[in-house]
Amino acid sequence: MQEELKNTIRIIQDFPTPGVSFKDITPIFASPDLCNRVVEEMINQLDGRKVDAVVGVESRGFFFGFLLALRLNVPFYPIRKKGKLPYKTYSESYELEYGKAAIEIHQDTIEKGMQVLVHDDLLATGGTMQATAKLIQAMGGELVGFSFIVALDQLKGIDKLLPYSSNIHSLVHYPI
Amino acid sequence: MQEELKNTIRIIQDFPTPGVSFKDITPIFASPDLCNRVVEEMINQLDGRKVDAVVGVESRGFFFGFLLALRLNVPFYPIRKKGKLPYKTYSESYELEYGKAAIEIHQDTIEKGMQVLVHDDLLATGGTMQATAKLIQAMGGELVGFSFIVALDQLKGIDKLLPYSSNIHSLVHYPI
Repeated sequence: MQEELKNTIRIIQDFPTPGVSFKDITPIFASPDLCNRVVEEMINQLDGRKVDAVVGVESRGFFFGFLLALRLNVPFYPIRKKGKLPYKTYSESYELEYGKAAIEIHQDTIEKGMQVLVHDDLLATGGTMQATAKLIQAMGGELVGFSFIVALDQLKGIDKLLPYSSNIHSLVHYPI
Repeated sequence: MQEELKNTIRIIQDFPTPGVSFKDITPIFASPDLCNRVVEEMINQLDGRKVDAVVGVESRGFFFGFLLALRLNVPFYPIRKKGKLPYKTYSESYELEYGKAAIEIHQDTIEKGMQVLVHDDLLATGGTMQATAKLIQAMGGELVGFSFIVALDQLKGIDKLLPYSSNIHSLVHYPI
């Protein structure tokens, strides 16, 4: 599957800013068969672990996050940038290269003891994912693991996530 | 289903701006069973019409748009705000209450003669949806119809969409 995904994912140089080699996953969405196999593989990687809820991070994490939740027959809880969720939220800020950003989750989502699977399309430096893990733990949830389509290994996002769960999977790896 | 959805959708007064009665669909995502029935009902409303692709509009249109495409076994093409899609795009601008905005679609998506179903979570004044319909037609696609979860009937978005397709469905209706 890694080779098929690499042949499908489109690499866009200098997007959104000069020097970035952007991994465009939208061509995956053009193949429903490949989409179904992506979700199946993510479920295989869970190795039978119990999942009570899936969270997906705005906005490319909404696609397969939502799908994963439905296939696992559990709730999906969206995580969005500050100010986007309409109801009462908990928020967590994280460092960017220049400045700070914050993500939010609705308060009536994760319950104490829930086994939570985190999904995003891509793991880069791991800042957003770490903030997501902190939010879930602060609400009493337990991290089942992290599931990505793409990981940029040289950015070492995995180091930030290991304290929360060692169950970190990506379907495709690039150096950067 | 309308009543069940109305009992699930959360109404948030004065979000994102004073005077707006926001319809929060995120509680639907907490019930995988309801999500599955939402998609089934949207497919029923197609009445057997042929669909070659589904487009969904950033970002709340990504959830059920993606799901619809997979259930129909056709490609999903995301429509995003200007500057968000990394590859070559076509764009279409539309009027806001104050100023203008633009949406974009990747150029290698809709092909001539494709029967395209448009999905978004909510139909309000119809500006974004009209721009979406124009984009699809300009690319040679044909509008199969529009599928929404919520329609705000008094905002008359439907009037803007009827020139493109009379097949306009919403699962829930509110006056505003």
